[in-house]
Amino acid sequence: MADKSEKTKARLPRGFADRSAEDIRAVEKMMSTIRSVFELYGFEPADQPLIEYTDALGKFLPDQDRPNEGVFSFQDDDDQWLSLRYDLTAPTARFVAENYERLPKPYRSYRSGWVFRNEKPGPGRFRQFMQFDADTIGTPGVAADAEMAMMMADVMEALGIKRGDYVIRVNNRKVLDGVLEAIGLGGDENAGRRLTVLRAIDKLDKLGPEGVRLLLGPGRWDGGKEGEGDFAKGAGLNDLQAEAVLLATAKDEQAGQDSSVSANAVYQEGVGELSTIEALVRAAGYAQDRIAMDRSVVRGLEYYTGPVLEAELLAEIPNEDGQIVRFGSVGGGGRYDGLVSRFRGEPVPATGFSIGVSRLMTALKNLGKLDSADVIAPVVVLVMDKDTDSLGRYQKMVAELRGAGIRSEMYLGGAGMKAQLKYADRRGCPVAIIQGGDERAKGELQIKDLIEGARMSAEITDNAEWRAARPAQVTVAESELVAEVKKILTAQAEERARGK
Amino acid sequence: MADKSEKTKARLPRGFADRSAEDIRAVEKMMSTIRSVFELYGFEPADQPLIEYTDALGKFLPDQDRPNEGVFSFQDDDDQWLSLRYDLTAPTARFVAENYERLPKPYRSYRSGWVFRNEKPGPGRFRQFMQFDADTIGTPGVAADAEMAMMMADVMEALGIKRGDYVIRVNNRKVLDGVLEAIGLGGDENAGRRLTVLRAIDKLDKLGPEGVRLLLGPGRWDGGKEGEGDFAKGAGLNDLQAEAVLLATAKDEQAGQDSSVSANAVYQEGVGELSTIEALVRAAGYAQDRIAMDRSVVRGLEYYTGPVLEAELLAEIPNEDGQIVRFGSVGGGGRYDGLVSRFRGEPVPATGFSIGVSRLMTALKNLGKLDSADVIAPVVVLVMDKDTDSLGRYQKMVAELRGAGIRSEMYLGGAGMKAQLKYADRRGCPVAIIQGGDERAKGELQIKDLIEGARMSAEITDNAEWRAARPAQVTVAESELVAEVKKILTAQAEERARGK
Repeated sequence: MADKSEKTKARLPRGFADRSAEDIRAVEKMMSTIRSVFELYGFEPADQPLIEYTDALGKFLPDQDRPNEGVFSFQDDDDQWLSLRYDLTAPTARFVAENYERLPKPYRSYRSGWVFRNEKPGPGRFRQFMQFDADTIGTPGVAADAEMAMMMADVMEALGIKRGDYVIRVNNRKVLDGVLEAIGLGGDENAGRRLTVLRAIDKLDKLGPEGVRLLLGPGRWDGGKEGEGDFAKGAGLNDLQAEAVLLATAKDEQAGQDSSVSANAVYQEGVGELSTIEALVRAAGYAQDRIAMDRSVVRGLEYYTGPVLEAELLAEIPNEDGQIVRFGSVGGGGRYDGLVSRFRGEPVPATGFSIGVSRLMTALKNLGKLDSADVIAPVVVLVMDKDTDSLGRYQKMVAELRGAGIRSEMYLGGAGMKAQLKYADRRGCPVAIIQGGDERAKGELQIKDLIEGARMSAEITDNAEWRAARPAQVTVAESELVAEVKKILTAQAEERARGK
Repeated sequence: MADKSEKTKARLPRGFADRSAEDIRAVEKMMSTIRSVFELYGFEPADQPLIEYTDALGKFLPDQDRPNEGVFSFQDDDDQWLSLRYDLTAPTARFVAENYERLPKPYRSYRSGWVFRNEKPGPGRFRQFMQFDADTIGTPGVAADAEMAMMMADVMEALGIKRGDYVIRVNNRKVLDGVLEAIGLGGDENAGRRLTVLRAIDKLDKLGPEGVRLLLGPGRWDGGKEGEGDFAKGAGLNDLQAEAVLLATAKDEQAGQDSSVSANAVYQEGVGELSTIEALVRAAGYAQDRIAMDRSVVRGLEYYTGPVLEAELLAEIPNEDGQIVRFGSVGGGGRYDGLVSRFRGEPVPATGFSIGVSRLMTALKNLGKLDSADVIAPVVVLVMDKDTDSLGRYQKMVAELRGAGIRSEMYLGGAGMKAQLKYADRRGCPVAIIQGGDERAKGELQIKDLIEGARMSAEITDNAEWRAARPAQVTVAESELVAEVKKILTAQAEERARGK
């Protein structure tokens, strides 16, 4: 097996990531805060498997012109197609539809987990990533959507994001749907064109109004100029139609639509729902700076049927690539009245919100909100003699330290003392315990303060007073092990606190 | 979409499970305890993706006669084969091999997550399940294996399992390997037969020595009698060979092997490692009742190369099917010196332990160790008037309660008061808040103690004194909402504590 010629190449598949201890701890901390807010709001944890029947997932993949192309699928031994879930909403809809009778309604649940996209990976774009969702299923009232907006605002503040550094934007898909109907794009036969319009609008930030106008009309060359890059076919709207769509998604839309649009029933319903949501959140004390009504929010997902939400970080912080930017969206959601219904053959209205876990974690880390300085590396007991007797004695020291709640380990490799200290340094260990034959004979052991040791060796001028107060190494009786280690760890903790 | 004729059937794929809120909370609680022990021992969290290149996973699937048949696989768009991981060890080996230079060695890490087996599902046998592993990679010393055994014993006790109700059994694969070599089953050409022997021994509990003797020899009919069920081909050992194998895996093996076996170098190495492990754990204060040396432990995995471990629950508790049984194995592990090496072309010794999360959770729940009575269902504010103004007022009450840290929600469905109370009952809500027009006019609201209400309606004799002390319903001023709800929740908590 150790033959070089036959060895397998160890490589991470494209678009997947190994996570570091630091990131895992940061995500844990963040998710625990999100969970506590969701619980406070009366949501219950739920969990569905990562694999579903392909037909149960439906053809709702976002940002995807060829539905289901972006899904990992495989055939079961009974020939049925299975897929890895691409979001948490579709499995939730399947679960609720299957267990509808026995669930309390509205059914309020939250869940987190990995989802998969079989797409071309890119920088910050992974094929496996984590989402954290909350859903309220079984109520048509927009009070449920208003609650989602408030809960997300509370989540942001619970995570330490200052008021003014985030905003929850709310819009209603019916506003745009009403405009499309009014300009003659209603009906099943125009579903494809409506989707093209939706995706064009979703690119407003990226392309600006002129780029979007091309996508709404004749189409657009990817490179920005004729003949450059690929040509994206447009929705084929004329200028007046395109203008109505752009107006409906402008931040200051309220006025301006002509009477054929403003008389449209779906449009009116959307505008009405938006003002109900606004009244509800204001009554609960959430002002414009936390929850804003914003007609420019569209959300790329085809399955939204009413209110849509987006959580945006306004703070200018480094993104995944280290550039200082306005961070942007860290989650979104909306009403998806059709997703459960398609299993049940009866209306089951639903609304939900999804947080992009890695993205939000990156933002919080860059804002300094996910400090893991409270996790201390283990105390390491060095192995000076390797006979079973000595190992047993070192093992006993470790057991004593652990018994006192001190994170610790016996060095388990085969290396000499210098390499062991290098190991301790690489791990960031705060303290090393050393007992060779001489110390053992006297019933003593040496305790090295590795933090202080590193500082002292880095200092140019020496500080005799300080050195006397906190020597980097002490020799104590074996029975003093735990007490002395505790003393050093406490001193180090105080120093860290002072340093802040 | 709501057309019945076109609807999709909502169904969970075979062998997968939706998890209940109770189970999710129980697993969270359990995993948090396990994590704290792993951390105390100086292990760091790590995480690999759920998908790996198929060749990186290797052909090490346990309990599987046709390697890789039991894996979910699919082809990437560059034609490379990808698979869902079937355990956490193979991805860990890939990760360590790929990042060997930059990792501290030994590399001590822990991880939890879903793994997948593309097998025929059965009762308690799922195609997706969770494991929780710890691994020490980069050291050949059995002190690392001894530490695994001690850590698992500590995990059991941290989870509340009494001493005497569990045991960590330790054996060494080299003992059996030595016997096989001594009876002429060494060498690459006998790898298949050795695997058959291993799997036969692993069935000792299920089939007894006579059944295993058949599997070691000529083979065995599944039904127990000739012609009944399928025929499992045996390893083809003669009586003397089979006897040596059975003797090597008997609990009282120490004596009895003939000189050709006891002189075998691999056998001696195995016996020697076992006594080193025993000396180390005893020195650290772990007696026979916590960590036992036991030659009958084999573990089905082909890739183990040295010490093997098994954590067994001795307590007689209900299993998944409700039968009272000695619960048995809840985890296991061992040394897998070949797994990282096969990527590196140099020896990278490693050892690890894996906990079966669902199985251990079931055991703990049945032992009453994962009580979730501390999770209180939300207080529900009923919706008596549905106009936006009233909704806003109810919403404000909920916001006040949440502001005081009280889990609560406004009823979001469309139903009347009776159905709302039924909803509260179904959720197990402790308190309901009611404010109709009359109360609002007076600036008051009603608070219903739903726990007390349920008790009172269940009681046959009425208890006037008790009723006076804790009425099931009170009317208070709006400003008293939080204080009064707190009072009721405290009274309910005291009652639960008394009831225990």
